Amino acid sequence: MPKKKNVIIMSKKAGLSPGTLENYGEESHPVQIAVTMYNETQFSEYEGEQDFSTYTHTSADHVTWIQITGMAPPEFLEKIGQAFSIHPLVLEDITSSGHRPKCEEYPEYLFIILQVFEQTEPVQPQQVCIIVGKSFLITFQEKSSGIFEPLQHRIRNGKGKIRHMGPDFLAYAIMDVIVDNYFVILEDVGEQLEDIEAALLHHPAPETLWNIQEMKQTVMILRRSVWPLRDVINALEREDVAFMTQSTSLYIRDVYDHTIQVIDILESYRDILSGLVDIYLSEVSNRMNEIMKVLTVIATIFIPLTFITSIYGMNFLYMPELQMKWGYFAVISIMGCIGMVMVLYFRKKKWI
Amino acid sequence: MPKKKNVIIMSKKAGLSPGTLENYGEESHPVQIAVTMYNETQFSEYEGEQDFSTYTHTSADHVTWIQITGMAPPEFLEKIGQAFSIHPLVLEDITSSGHRPKCEEYPEYLFIILQVFEQTEPVQPQQVCIIVGKSFLITFQEKSSGIFEPLQHRIRNGKGKIRHMGPDFLAYAIMDVIVDNYFVILEDVGEQLEDIEAALLHHPAPETLWNIQEMKQTVMILRRSVWPLRDVINALEREDVAFMTQSTSLYIRDVYDHTIQVIDILESYRDILSGLVDIYLSEVSNRMNEIMKVLTVIATIFIPLTFITSIYGMNFLYMPELQMKWGYFAVISIMGCIGMVMVLYFRKKKWI
Amino acid sequence: MPKKKNVIIMSKKAGLSPGTLENYGEESHPVQIAVTMYNETQFSEYEGEQDFSTYTHTSADHVTWIQITGMAPPEFLEKIGQAFSIHPLVLEDITSSGHRPKCEEYPEYLFIILQVFEQTEPVQPQQVCIIVGKSFLITFQEKSSGIFEPLQHRIRNGKGKIRHMGPDFLAYAIMDVIVDNYFVILEDVGEQLEDIEAALLHHPAPETLWNIQEMKQTVMILRRSVWPLRDVINALEREDVAFMTQSTSLYIRDVYDHTIQVIDILESYRDILSGLVDIYLSEVSNRMNEIMKVLTVIATIFIPLTFITSIYGMNFLYMPELQMKWGYFAVISIMGCIGMVMVLYFRKKKWI
Amino acid sequence: MPKKKNVIIMSKKAGLSPGTLENYGEESHPVQIAVTMYNETQFSEYEGEQDFSTYTHTSADHVTWIQITGMAPPEFLEKIGQAFSIHPLVLEDITSSGHRPKCEEYPEYLFIILQVFEQTEPVQPQQVCIIVGKSFLITFQEKSSGIFEPLQHRIRNGKGKIRHMGPDFLAYAIMDVIVDNYFVILEDVGEQLEDIEAALLHHPAPETLWNIQEMKQTVMILRRSVWPLRDVINALEREDVAFMTQSTSLYIRDVYDHTIQVIDILESYRDILSGLVDIYLSEVSNRMNEIMKVLTVIATIFIPLTFITSIYGMNFLYMPELQMKWGYFAVISIMGCIGMVMVLYFRKKKWI
Amino acid sequence: MPKKKNVIIMSKKAGLSPGTLENYGEESHPVQIAVTMYNETQFSEYEGEQDFSTYTHTSADHVTWIQITGMAPPEFLEKIGQAFSIHPLVLEDITSSGHRPKCEEYPEYLFIILQVFEQTEPVQPQQVCIIVGKSFLITFQEKSSGIFEPLQHRIRNGKGKIRHMGPDFLAYAIMDVIVDNYFVILEDVGEQLEDIEAALLHHPAPETLWNIQEMKQTVMILRRSVWPLRDVINALEREDVAFMTQSTSLYIRDVYDHTIQVIDILESYRDILSGLVDIYLSEVSNRMNEIMKVLTVIATIFIPLTFITSIYGMNFLYMPELQMKWGYFAVISIMGCIGMVMVLYFRKKKWI
Repeated sequence: MPKKKNVIIMSKKAGLSPGTLENYGEESHPVQIAVTMYNETQFSEYEGEQDFSTYTHTSADHVTWIQITGMAPPEFLEKIGQAFSIHPLVLEDITSSGHRPKCEEYPEYLFIILQVFEQTEPVQPQQVCIIVGKSFLITFQEKSSGIFEPLQHRIRNGKGKIRHMGPDFLAYAIMDVIVDNYFVILEDVGEQLEDIEAALLHHPAPETLWNIQEMKQTVMILRRSVWPLRDVINALEREDVAFMTQSTSLYIRDVYDHTIQVIDILESYRDILSGLVDIYLSEVSNRMNEIMKVLTVIATIFIPLTFITSIYGMNFLYMPELQMKWGYFAVISIMGCIGMVMVLYFRKKKWI
Repeated sequence: MPKKKNVIIMSKKAGLSPGTLENYGEESHPVQIAVTMYNETQFSEYEGEQDFSTYTHTSADHVTWIQITGMAPPEFLEKIGQAFSIHPLVLEDITSSGHRPKCEEYPEYLFIILQVFEQTEPVQPQQVCIIVGKSFLITFQEKSSGIFEPLQHRIRNGKGKIRHMGPDFLAYAIMDVIVDNYFVILEDVGEQLEDIEAALLHHPAPETLWNIQEMKQTVMILRRSVWPLRDVINALEREDVAFMTQSTSLYIRDVYDHTIQVIDILESYRDILSGLVDIYLSEVSNRMNEIMKVLTVIATIFIPLTFITSIYGMNFLYMPELQMKWGYFAVISIMGCIGMVMVLYFRKKKWI
Repeated sequence: MPKKKNVIIMSKKAGLSPGTLENYGEESHPVQIAVTMYNETQFSEYEGEQDFSTYTHTSADHVTWIQITGMAPPEFLEKIGQAFSIHPLVLEDITSSGHRPKCEEYPEYLFIILQVFEQTEPVQPQQVCIIVGKSFLITFQEKSSGIFEPLQHRIRNGKGKIRHMGPDFLAYAIMDVIVDNYFVILEDVGEQLEDIEAALLHHPAPETLWNIQEMKQTVMILRRSVWPLRDVINALEREDVAFMTQSTSLYIRDVYDHTIQVIDILESYRDILSGLVDIYLSEVSNRMNEIMKVLTVIATIFIPLTFITSIYGMNFLYMPELQMKWGYFAVISIMGCIGMVMVLYFRKKKWI
Repeated sequence: MPKKKNVIIMSKKAGLSPGTLENYGEESHPVQIAVTMYNETQFSEYEGEQDFSTYTHTSADHVTWIQITGMAPPEFLEKIGQAFSIHPLVLEDITSSGHRPKCEEYPEYLFIILQVFEQTEPVQPQQVCIIVGKSFLITFQEKSSGIFEPLQHRIRNGKGKIRHMGPDFLAYAIMDVIVDNYFVILEDVGEQLEDIEAALLHHPAPETLWNIQEMKQTVMILRRSVWPLRDVINALEREDVAFMTQSTSLYIRDVYDHTIQVIDILESYRDILSGLVDIYLSEVSNRMNEIMKVLTVIATIFIPLTFITSIYGMNFLYMPELQMKWGYFAVISIMGCIGMVMVLYFRKKKWI
Repeated sequence: MPKKKNVIIMSKKAGLSPGTLENYGEESHPVQIAVTMYNETQFSEYEGEQDFSTYTHTSADHVTWIQITGMAPPEFLEKIGQAFSIHPLVLEDITSSGHRPKCEEYPEYLFIILQVFEQTEPVQPQQVCIIVGKSFLITFQEKSSGIFEPLQHRIRNGKGKIRHMGPDFLAYAIMDVIVDNYFVILEDVGEQLEDIEAALLHHPAPETLWNIQEMKQTVMILRRSVWPLRDVINALEREDVAFMTQSTSLYIRDVYDHTIQVIDILESYRDILSGLVDIYLSEVSNRMNEIMKVLTVIATIFIPLTFITSIYGMNFLYMPELQMKWGYFAVISIMGCIGMVMVLYFRKKKWI
């Protein structure tokens, strides 16, 4: 059964002036702000209110990570925009969903759009925007999802290199979390694939084909998300991006490898799915064959036998066999033999 | 049912000298001219007549937007051509329809051809030509379509940046409107796709396949329009186009992103459609299977039973069962049992 | 029915020394020479004989267009080769047919091979070779085809720019005529496509699939011709080709656009054709279904009824129903009811 | 019926030191050496023995062509290797078969591997290695095949340019012969294609599909051979290859064109073959339909008629029709009418 | 029957700090260390213990090859990491499996990941990591597999060039062994392909399609391994890789050629497999046809005959034929004739 189609069409806004900020989310999520400040030795975090005048003092000796969750109202975004001097088009991109992953370099910051998938049914990308400055990093999420929890935990505990590095490493860590998240989704998809294979094997039904079609769309949506992601990460690794230090670049190469793995798996899923269509179609044919075989066997055995009986059902006055004492038993025996021969023939043909 | 094929073949004009201006539109639309002049502080607009000598005085301190709607007669175009020193081949391109989106740079102006789609049945591209000069912008439309209405409204009201920018920003705004228009068409196509899916699910008919084939052609026509559009916008963004200022270039990047989204959606529609063909073909097979099952069940139950009755319809003189008092009822019961067993067997096989 | 395959295999000449001139055309066409000389003010033309010593005096103040039609004998070509100092390999290319469009630059001239298609059944490319020099242009055609008639007419009448320009513009005009000719062929192919669609809709027959296969080959042959043509024209437009002036280059860009249109249409034909194969296959399945339905309906109605009659055809001594007075009519009525119920059931199932 | 698969797997030699010379040919062919020396005025040729010390004195004033046919034993190759200072890896490449065409430039010579096909059933590439030096050219062939005969004849007779040019022109001439040889093979394949088309039209059998599959593999093997060949020839034409003179380069461009033609034809064969699979599958369906029609017609005519007769075979005591004098003939006539109507119906449906 | 899917999903480690070393192998293999030291004259080898402080003294006058087999525990890897100053990310890559082949250049060493396949059912890549330094080479293998045995033997015996060259040549030799290993796997796959072809020919069953699907995945996994391998080898050959000497580069070109051969064969396997799906589907149709033919022949012969007998089974009082003496035998003979005619007709139609 086809569920709601997963193709995401950007809300159209024909006639609106570009750079106009509007929230067209169907459901509104209250905005939550979490601020984390850290350097090698110090660490502080507090749940911010929309009154964000308190934490815009970003200084170079520590990293400030501002997590904004939920659909921010335009006036709020405009204030942030002024505080960090963010271009109106960037703010517009943040508000409108449905963007493919991309990376844009501005003189003062780096703007990255990524996509997070939380579940596979339906696969629905959630947009994550990242603004990487010299000493700060702002993330915008539409919904609270908890995928940054472990990362925040790591910063809090000071484990790993993250406390010793700048916001570019934090950006890397976020990308790493997001790419790792794809593997979770892929495993889910892989399990669904196995379910479909099992269904094909045991009881192929028309629904199975719809499921395959849906899986194809899921894979397609993931591919449409991960191919531009690859380009984004590649751009961050290769080019002389001002906000990426040399030491982080090596780590980004690692994320790049993972992205390639995601692509590899998606491509193989695609191949498997198109093979499953073949198998489904052939299973349908096979079922048909099985039905035809039964019909053929039954009809082919009984039609000639019925012919014989109908001969002796004729009312001719002079039919010598009818007068014979053992005629009836002879005919029954002959028909038994014919039936046996046919059964043996069909068994040889492997039809029964 | 196949409707008229949508493949647009350029009117051939073998033997005509190139640069010859001719109107080969089947129906003639009267030419309408609308002139809009504006700068940061001033704004004026008037419906022009074909006597356009009054508004060719384009000066650098304001932007003049000349909207020409309808099939302009050759002599009219020639006058415009002389007034703005436009190359004859450009004028020829404007007259003849069926061009793919393209962008050509001339020393005095930039010539852009775009396509607008107004409805999906049939999908028929309407050509929009844009000439961007230092201080003027001319648009040529074959038919009045109203898609520039909101834009004109915005200029009139002075909303957004448009009044502060030159004709290049106006060109951007037009392209933005046109690309946004694709999303409207895409939504239409998406709805038709859903209709086809529903038809496939509930009552697949041979027409459904024709509809899929038509949808494929619609998507194909849109793709053929949007891929070169991407190239046009990419060229405007990347290259050192003389008529594009730095500040507009950022906005064009935004339109480029939208174009990529359109392409993404079209590609996914294409994949979905080719999956639907598979589903249609399998649905046809399934219907067949269902019919075969009924035939098989009926024939397989009654053919053996009829055989039994025909045995006792034989006219042999000596058939002991016929003399038995309960013979008839015994045979009827036996046949009832055989029938029951078969029904159970078929139910187990899930055929009924 | 498959006609003769249209794949053109170059006549093999293994073992022949390269540059050897030989005419391997199956039918010989007598060589005809038409010479046209013109400049802005003057114009003269005469049907030349093979004694071409009279018109090799090409001077820079007028353009000489030598049209050679038919299979020129080797000695004739050699004379031309010496007169215009043409490389032996070029002469060999002119003699042998089956070349794909190409463009080669030599110090003294530009050598262009193009293909003209005259009809679609079968699609048979006819080779047109063009040698463009500083003040002369030679065309070689295998058969007289009349497609250059309108062009010659235009020169004669002095219409358009052609009389004011050099041989490069003439070369452009020839290419324009040839590309426009593709549109004629494409329209023909388009009509055949519509015929096939109609056939599929009304009476799909095995021949229809053969026709689709043939159409596919036609489209394939055209594609194989037009893709390299695109490269040729692209090369002439972009590169610093010595024999192409700046002002002609703009016109060549126009031809290039037309070539792209031809390619677009061919690609869409290809997609349509592969969709038609799906439709054909599904139509065949549908016919099958229709036949199966009739069989199923007839058999399913009458097999149970015949079973009932055969019960009362049994010869048991004690069958109470047989003695009943209204037994016969009761059975007839019951069978009537059963028949009616079945017909209603099948009507509900939409089988009849 | 599937013949031996044509995929050539290089003899594995895991664990062997690279550069180790070994002959792993299944059948050994005795080595034959033919030496041809020529310049513009002189010509000499002799069948060499393995004692090749006599003809290694290659001097610059004439071209020495050493043709080595058969599987050369390692010690022999090593001697040649030392005489002409050939790299061990080149010698290894010569010994082992299954290489794709390639071209490697060494300081002292150019090493080219090509493939020759002698027949199409099965298509089996035979490796030809060419070493082009300043004044010598060595060819290595696994089997004697006679395709160089005409070339040798041409040198002997001094026809064409070959006697006036260096070993690079000889290399060109060899490549020309080899590419021309592809056309012979292609014609063969084309004929087989026509056979398959005829088989499909007249008596499609399961074997036909195997034949198509085999043809696909043949085309695939040829493609795998000719695409790298194109690269080889392209490399020889474009790059500043030290061993290729300017005047030869023009001729190589000619071979390049022929290679493109081969590729074009192969691609079209591939398309035709995949269309033939569709046709085969649809022919199978059509046969099925034909069979089903016969069954349907026969069953649909006789099942209702038999039902009527079985009504009057019932043994009810009171059946008024049985007593009527003309009852029998009336029933026979009615059945005749029903039969006629059905036949007409089926004829209208075009089933018979 | 579908076996376990072979798609390898990297163990996810979302939330872990990058560079964290962990062994997530399901089964632990005890670590084994084999050290081989050699130069032109000297050779020594010993089975090392985890106490590897004894063999880290790598000096420039001999090559030290450290083979580490099994899942090395983190602390062990850290020690090696410090001894040879290896980057933590490299160590992480070594621990985690599922990487595609890649090559990374670090200032002190070259890091190469390769894949080895040991059997085809299932195809399971085993990761081999190579670190090439100035005078040492370390290989990491997950499982002991014996494919380096012959290589080690060659070093021990001093055969070939290997003892005269540095660690780059050893790296080449390892890659050569690994690429040669692909041919072994390919031959295995080729044999399975032949089995499938035989199965298709003699007794196509639904399992066959599953087998084809599985084979497709096997080929896909191999492709996903060998395409990046090609890039790795290409990078080593072309670029100015610091750790590759000029003389080794020539040998790497040889390995590159072999990789291309592997790719060629894999591509042809892919084509063959997709052709086999067609053949399978058509075989299923053919079986169906065969069954239908039997049904049609039997039903078509006996249904009309039964009709005739049932005519004379009617109980009309006045049926003249019944009184005729030879009526019975006449009807029997007529039915015999009709049966014969039908058999001949079906034989002509080639249905029996």
